[in-house]
Amino acid sequence: MYFGSGAAMSFEHSTRRQILFGECDAAGIVYYPRYFEMFDANTSAMFSAALGLSQHEMEETFGIIGCPMVKTSANFHSPATYGDDVVIVSQVMSIGITSITLQSRITHSDGKLVVETEDIRVWATKLNGKIASKPVPDLVRSRLLT
Amino acid sequence: MYFGSGAAMSFEHSTRRQILFGECDAAGIVYYPRYFEMFDANTSAMFSAALGLSQHEMEETFGIIGCPMVKTSANFHSPATYGDDVVIVSQVMSIGITSITLQSRITHSDGKLVVETEDIRVWATKLNGKIASKPVPDLVRSRLLT
Amino acid sequence: MYFGSGAAMSFEHSTRRQILFGECDAAGIVYYPRYFEMFDANTSAMFSAALGLSQHEMEETFGIIGCPMVKTSANFHSPATYGDDVVIVSQVMSIGITSITLQSRITHSDGKLVVETEDIRVWATKLNGKIASKPVPDLVRSRLLT
Amino acid sequence: MYFGSGAAMSFEHSTRRQILFGECDAAGIVYYPRYFEMFDANTSAMFSAALGLSQHEMEETFGIIGCPMVKTSANFHSPATYGDDVVIVSQVMSIGITSITLQSRITHSDGKLVVETEDIRVWATKLNGKIASKPVPDLVRSRLLT
Repeated sequence: MYFGSGAAMSFEHSTRRQILFGECDAAGIVYYPRYFEMFDANTSAMFSAALGLSQHEMEETFGIIGCPMVKTSANFHSPATYGDDVVIVSQVMSIGITSITLQSRITHSDGKLVVETEDIRVWATKLNGKIASKPVPDLVRSRLLT
Repeated sequence: MYFGSGAAMSFEHSTRRQILFGECDAAGIVYYPRYFEMFDANTSAMFSAALGLSQHEMEETFGIIGCPMVKTSANFHSPATYGDDVVIVSQVMSIGITSITLQSRITHSDGKLVVETEDIRVWATKLNGKIASKPVPDLVRSRLLT
Repeated sequence: MYFGSGAAMSFEHSTRRQILFGECDAAGIVYYPRYFEMFDANTSAMFSAALGLSQHEMEETFGIIGCPMVKTSANFHSPATYGDDVVIVSQVMSIGITSITLQSRITHSDGKLVVETEDIRVWATKLNGKIASKPVPDLVRSRLLT
Repeated sequence: MYFGSGAAMSFEHSTRRQILFGECDAAGIVYYPRYFEMFDANTSAMFSAALGLSQHEMEETFGIIGCPMVKTSANFHSPATYGDDVVIVSQVMSIGITSITLQSRITHSDGKLVVETEDIRVWATKLNGKIASKPVPDLVRSRLLT
């Protein structure tokens, strides 16, 4: 369903790693909240790779506190267990005034789909102690959607 | 959007608790994967309350390994930080042959919505080392949707 | 070993709760890093109870970023699994110029010891972006060691 | 203090990685229970590398459920924040009848020490639903302490 051809020009980032014992639950499979940690880590890495900035540098350069999640949906297709080699791929699908829509998926090394998500995040700053959205800068826009 | 009147007869379970320091990230707000841990805990508590069985007893009684998540979507409305008093509410919306659809939400103690989810879980067993769905028993059905 | 009579006059805080499914690993018992989250949560609650301040209020009142851990040791005596009712108890053993030594333990509801720790934390502030220790205020001292 | 010369002949395993945003707390530094997850992951990887077996294969080959922690102590020397490049190193110090003593440390890429631990784990099986220690096999012994 996700990763349609329309996103062919967007920035994509992937990480290859092993599922850890501590990420699994008593059923021996990944505890599903942990998938969101994996997606969040890969999304951060994608921003850093696209902009050539660490997350701390992004915060300083753009005056943001990050890109908090506004909406996420996930489909769990097949389980993964500790020791499994997986690939996590994330890409930007569209960028609104203040929002960024992304899709991510985790596959086994043989290509079998584990889980896919679609996320909407917001470019955010802190104003008077409160989190507020602000426009995505043109530089960021051009690096993520080319 | 969620929690429509159609679910008026379903079982509902709520937990009142405080957001912990360790659940927050460097922006000082709940790290969003942690919300899924809160929802998962409340959903388990809901099943236990509805059936009068601990999770271990459920596994033994029904020969299941739990109710793995098949699909979840979450909308994040306002942030929460450590020390905040929140209420987590979950309820069953519908039950298919092998699937259970639930809605959950977290609100501040003043009623302000923090996050809401809609989940589809599956009643699951392990066959030859693989996770497989099986029909939701009538007893469970009658306790969760009355 | 821990909780000797010498600490009889110190502030003590306990929390009764259930072990969650998501806190257990593929062996079906609590994943040990999770015990540190439980101890950390109970220690924060202990400070709040002793001082009558939320953690945010403590930070503002005393100009601290918290009490980072300097040293911890833990002995794991018996396993716990999801659904187990446990009690987490923490108490202050001594207070140095900038450090606070605490002991905590988790027991099953029948009193059987699960895990005990001894921690040294430091009263800390942020100076020029770096974490630095500062003296524990007399007020805090008098509330924690009476 | 740790990593004395006496362990020069033991198996050692190291992982180079970045600290993740989700591993940090509201003070902007690694939430200390997360360090135990890093050490646990590196210890598992060390066993796999030494034996040439995945963790699942270890469980099947030796009839164990893993190596639960019996005792751990950690000294936190300097903080780490998200984006920091760190190296996690673990090595076996000694092996008793059923126990394995290990030391691990995390350093910044410039060599600055972040945290070091000493752990005692036990070679464990499940008997009648209860976790019980069993002797460390000679093969394991010879691979970890050469």
